[in-house]
Amino acid sequence: MGPAALQVPSPAADRQRVVISVDAMGGDRGPAVVVAGVAAVVAANPDVHILLHGDKSVLAPLLDKKPELSAFVTLRHAERVVTMEDKPSHVMRHGMGTSMWSCIDGVRSGEASAAVSCGNTGALMAVSMLRLRRLHGVARPAIACLWPSRNPGGFNVMLDVGADVKADPEDLLQYATMGASYARNGLGLARPRVGLLNVGTEEHKGRAELKVAHDLIASATGPGGFDFVGFVEGGDIPSDRVDVIVTDGFTGNVALKTGEGTAKLVGEFLKQAFNATFLSRIAALLALNSLKRLQARIDPRRVNGGVFLGLNGTVVKSHGSADATGVEAAIHLATRLARAGFIERLAARVASAQGAGQDTPGQGEGAGAQP
Amino acid sequence: MGPAALQVPSPAADRQRVVISVDAMGGDRGPAVVVAGVAAVVAANPDVHILLHGDKSVLAPLLDKKPELSAFVTLRHAERVVTMEDKPSHVMRHGMGTSMWSCIDGVRSGEASAAVSCGNTGALMAVSMLRLRRLHGVARPAIACLWPSRNPGGFNVMLDVGADVKADPEDLLQYATMGASYARNGLGLARPRVGLLNVGTEEHKGRAELKVAHDLIASATGPGGFDFVGFVEGGDIPSDRVDVIVTDGFTGNVALKTGEGTAKLVGEFLKQAFNATFLSRIAALLALNSLKRLQARIDPRRVNGGVFLGLNGTVVKSHGSADATGVEAAIHLATRLARAGFIERLAARVASAQGAGQDTPGQGEGAGAQP
Repeated sequence: MGPAALQVPSPAADRQRVVISVDAMGGDRGPAVVVAGVAAVVAANPDVHILLHGDKSVLAPLLDKKPELSAFVTLRHAERVVTMEDKPSHVMRHGMGTSMWSCIDGVRSGEASAAVSCGNTGALMAVSMLRLRRLHGVARPAIACLWPSRNPGGFNVMLDVGADVKADPEDLLQYATMGASYARNGLGLARPRVGLLNVGTEEHKGRAELKVAHDLIASATGPGGFDFVGFVEGGDIPSDRVDVIVTDGFTGNVALKTGEGTAKLVGEFLKQAFNATFLSRIAALLALNSLKRLQARIDPRRVNGGVFLGLNGTVVKSHGSADATGVEAAIHLATRLARAGFIERLAARVASAQGAGQDTPGQGEGAGAQP
Repeated sequence: MGPAALQVPSPAADRQRVVISVDAMGGDRGPAVVVAGVAAVVAANPDVHILLHGDKSVLAPLLDKKPELSAFVTLRHAERVVTMEDKPSHVMRHGMGTSMWSCIDGVRSGEASAAVSCGNTGALMAVSMLRLRRLHGVARPAIACLWPSRNPGGFNVMLDVGADVKADPEDLLQYATMGASYARNGLGLARPRVGLLNVGTEEHKGRAELKVAHDLIASATGPGGFDFVGFVEGGDIPSDRVDVIVTDGFTGNVALKTGEGTAKLVGEFLKQAFNATFLSRIAALLALNSLKRLQARIDPRRVNGGVFLGLNGTVVKSHGSADATGVEAAIHLATRLARAGFIERLAARVASAQGAGQDTPGQGEGAGAQP
């Protein structure tokens, strides 16, 4: 967390070698899609080096088929795998020797700048908290996701989408600070606009703790480096009046899955509508390219990568059912955040906003040095 | 709540005269669309009589233009209007003399079997609670909405979508009972399947109070007359493995608005995709009927009408921006519920389920008499 890390990356820094720790096991589609994703990343980005964790007897044959990867990938043998059914508490006690644990330890040891896994979300958060520890002053880490939106960049940030089912007003303040830092470093927004999710935009609406959080966040915009638009509603999540939506992990998880479920339902209805008549089937053929463009805009693979915020290290959770394109997107995201010195910037923001939250004006040093 | 009201309605009962109390004011589009909606209802349903509440100087000229309505509509003058900006607490103290108050009093006095209003939701709930009072044993009334789904009927029920920002396990049990009763009487499902919204379907997931609610609901399926499928996630809200989704009013409101917002976003993206090229515009013309069918399936006007559950009277909240078709749908829903003797059935179920919740086996009398 030295001052050097706080500098804006120069073009030279963009080209510096970055090491990413990747868990090859534990995804629904097996290690072959992870290796394919890794191959796509290093083909586009020869400055990225991958520590690949998993069973040697499974991974070595896959790597042997792609000899061009040998200069970019270091295999780290881990015999065991965390399954989707394993309970987080069990993995915390008995997870040593799994590819997930080994992957996180790649960041813990300082060898890698970020970790990527398609495995069990709860277990990944538990292992990450245990091995990387929380950032100083962070009570509850959060998972941030990207949400298709009307903003020019095409995405908004929402957090927490499932790290913890509860959040106190102080946690929501930290989510605002961390989410804004993520939007700056991950989406390139100079001064993100933060909104607090509620059931109405009027200040008298909603739960009492949200009013407390509202005032805490409103007083931390300086050191946090964001603008606060106040309360937003569910319909505002994809809107262009906000960049970062802050909520507790219960509400965020329900909203995320409701949004995904609705998009899927409308997609099914659309398909049925185009299959209804001969004329509509012709129309679908004519509109094929347009429909593909639509699909690309709401393709969950493009937004693949929930980022764990509030730990001493960057961890990207790829979707369990991610294919090679999804894995590639998650590793690209991890690389971008590593190159931006995201963790150091995030730590400085959290420390600064906390000073403000305690009615001590933020020092502004770390803050001033950041975009 | 006499035993007669618990009988299954006969075909003769279906044709009996029903009086519905309708607030003509307070919607975003003014009283003309309400009168148009009323006209459509009575044209299709000559056994429905409407008590129409609002400013005589505005409504009389609208009614004069449709002389065919005179036999079906009784005008009730109310000088004042509740606006969308009025705070519920203010309306509770000073709302007498408004069309909303007068509309609810039409049910309170027994003249009408159900009330319909497009006005301010919070104020409507406050006036309804004040004038109709809660059902015996109900701590928190709820608002139930219909959600487009993959089920044969095309809709699922979700509650609470915004009556109260909090819900205890006992409230969630009542929501299950009331939602199931609504699904039986409003959607015609003999034995609705109830799910409890959570962040995972495993029993160890989610908030502690949800585990308590899970066990309460599981033990009340007999007197409640429903099946319990356990925890469901946001993606399951439109699914065909559940008919009634139970949650607190904060989560439900966020989910509802997130779903509406997502459907709107996908619709916009679709429109842009079809406008992208010359070929895609031709395709859109060819697919016009199919696209209209799609629009109809996700048209919020078709699902218009949040129903207030847990009061001594049926109140249907029509969307503030409802047009004549939306108002018509809301009045039809109110009529259907009134004809089914919904309030009496609901009260019997709540009483019966409560007995079960207190570890006294339900008497089963009210329960046995219901569909």
